[in-house]
Amino acid sequence: MKRKISLLTSAVCLSLASSVAMADALRDRASALFEAIPQEPPVIEGNELTPEKVELGKMLFFEPRLSASHLISCNTCHNVGFGGDDYLPVSIGHGWQKGPRNAPTVFNAVFNAAQFWDGRAADLAEQAKGPVQAGVEMSSTPERVVDTLNSMPDYIERFKASFPGEADPVTFDNMAIAIEAFEATLITPNSPFDLWLNGDDAALNDEQKEGLALFMDKGCAACHAGVNFGGQNYFPFGLVKRPGADILPEGDRGRFEVTQTATDDYVFRAAPLRNIELTAPYFHSGAVWDLEEAVSVMGVAQLGAELNDDQVHKIAEFLRTLTGDVPTVVYPHLPPSTRTTPRPVSMMNPDY
Amino acid sequence: MKRKISLLTSAVCLSLASSVAMADALRDRASALFEAIPQEPPVIEGNELTPEKVELGKMLFFEPRLSASHLISCNTCHNVGFGGDDYLPVSIGHGWQKGPRNAPTVFNAVFNAAQFWDGRAADLAEQAKGPVQAGVEMSSTPERVVDTLNSMPDYIERFKASFPGEADPVTFDNMAIAIEAFEATLITPNSPFDLWLNGDDAALNDEQKEGLALFMDKGCAACHAGVNFGGQNYFPFGLVKRPGADILPEGDRGRFEVTQTATDDYVFRAAPLRNIELTAPYFHSGAVWDLEEAVSVMGVAQLGAELNDDQVHKIAEFLRTLTGDVPTVVYPHLPPSTRTTPRPVSMMNPDY
Repeated sequence: MKRKISLLTSAVCLSLASSVAMADALRDRASALFEAIPQEPPVIEGNELTPEKVELGKMLFFEPRLSASHLISCNTCHNVGFGGDDYLPVSIGHGWQKGPRNAPTVFNAVFNAAQFWDGRAADLAEQAKGPVQAGVEMSSTPERVVDTLNSMPDYIERFKASFPGEADPVTFDNMAIAIEAFEATLITPNSPFDLWLNGDDAALNDEQKEGLALFMDKGCAACHAGVNFGGQNYFPFGLVKRPGADILPEGDRGRFEVTQTATDDYVFRAAPLRNIELTAPYFHSGAVWDLEEAVSVMGVAQLGAELNDDQVHKIAEFLRTLTGDVPTVVYPHLPPSTRTTPRPVSMMNPDY
Repeated sequence: MKRKISLLTSAVCLSLASSVAMADALRDRASALFEAIPQEPPVIEGNELTPEKVELGKMLFFEPRLSASHLISCNTCHNVGFGGDDYLPVSIGHGWQKGPRNAPTVFNAVFNAAQFWDGRAADLAEQAKGPVQAGVEMSSTPERVVDTLNSMPDYIERFKASFPGEADPVTFDNMAIAIEAFEATLITPNSPFDLWLNGDDAALNDEQKEGLALFMDKGCAACHAGVNFGGQNYFPFGLVKRPGADILPEGDRGRFEVTQTATDDYVFRAAPLRNIELTAPYFHSGAVWDLEEAVSVMGVAQLGAELNDDQVHKIAEFLRTLTGDVPTVVYPHLPPSTRTTPRPVSMMNPDY
């Protein structure tokens, strides 16, 4: 009896030791591919994150008067109460027009190599200028924005404090730089995966670890790696097998529209997968609501692999461990309009 | 020389004494008509403001999935970053439709005798059910709202915690009660006027005090009194002289549409004037952007008095002292949709 117990104990010990070794091996593989979200925002070259600038950027992020209608702000489509986007297939903009692609999340966007699904903006400041001017989004102009901001003394003071030494700090470019500064603070550390990556064995359960192993073994991590699990490089959607037009609309040729290069046809930036649980629906078309379905579609389209239900489930469960601490944002108080603030305009009534 | 100084000192003393007496007299008159905003939210009969309920109400206030489009929340038109409304003549709602009247501020709305410009809702809970269902606003239904909330486990738990002892707490009525609880916290104490009313002589300057005296002497306070400087009673717009159709559109007959009583023709709730500086444009039509112009229009329409520029300016300067400490609101984190959450719909594409 004693011997049996002893054998059992040895077996348990052996199994534990082997399990620890396997966990370490899995962590070593993961560490070579991925990186935890840091606790503090990164340094942005040429854009120091001063408290004044971050606060100004927050006000501008929530400022509907950057849109022609005075209805739409950055937060309308990149909602900090959701996962940093709008839970819509494509966003609704000026005049209730629909945007061409699913709104990407603003959370951790500072870690992407470039912005937009086609990477046409090099950084968040360049990105911020796009929607403000896009006819289907905020439909304003740089002149109107500068007139609007200059009409409110509080904004003028804040631009001065945020861009000290500049003779004329209230500019469209500085608006974008301040928004970038705020957005750089919207990072989501401490996801279960990150805690595990940093050594907390209990942060992931076995199923989630199996999902992680599958994510690496099956090739998902070839495109979705780095600190953001994506957002670094461009790949054809349908690398192996092109999905149907419901998921990959034929009219949207992706990065080809930026580069006019044949090899960029239907090429998109690999979606960052951080907080993916909070950012449905999926793909640039926003056509798929279900995370399991999205994983399955990716298997066929990008890997040529029919993942079975168990594999899909485990990968999805792993992806749900990428949800971090979403930022705490105090709603900013915006200054009142003045007599010289441009009035809201509407497509339906130009006088309004 | 000595005597001259002495005389001068006496004169100054006399003038000071008289000034103090006048200030006290002004305060006595004001105290009989107005009341300071309290530091804490009021008690609402039948709706205890528990922390759980207030937090749930905040989430619902910011919840775009209460609208059919998943784009519009209470905060869209009652923006806590502005003066509790949207700085638009009339709000933009579902399908970019325009609402019929200017959005009233949510700040201090708990102190109004009834809600909406025509008082058709007795309290904030009844009010909250209106825009959620209105076709031109959020365009949802009670069934859809309940299905939406029941699809997210986090909301179910929060309703249970907010309405303990109820067998089926996730109801449309409880949604409204929770929103009322949050809105009751959106009060703005410590305005310069309130500080002065409570004894701080320096909180108002002479011009502002002259404006206050004019506000009472000219008759403005006959309708705009109480804690909210209005919001308590109904009066015809154009009591003395009906304004033009640009300010008082003929198609909107106000409270007549609620009561079908001839004496209620073009009758509206006297607008609460708290934070009026932050809630342009003015009137139910939202037709006037300028506070001085609004005061002038009111003089002619309600009092039959052509106020001169100096009087208008002083009254407006006084009204600007009604701006209090606007609430600090931490943006709530909303739970992710699930497989059973109803999907957004759009007028332009029912599949979307």
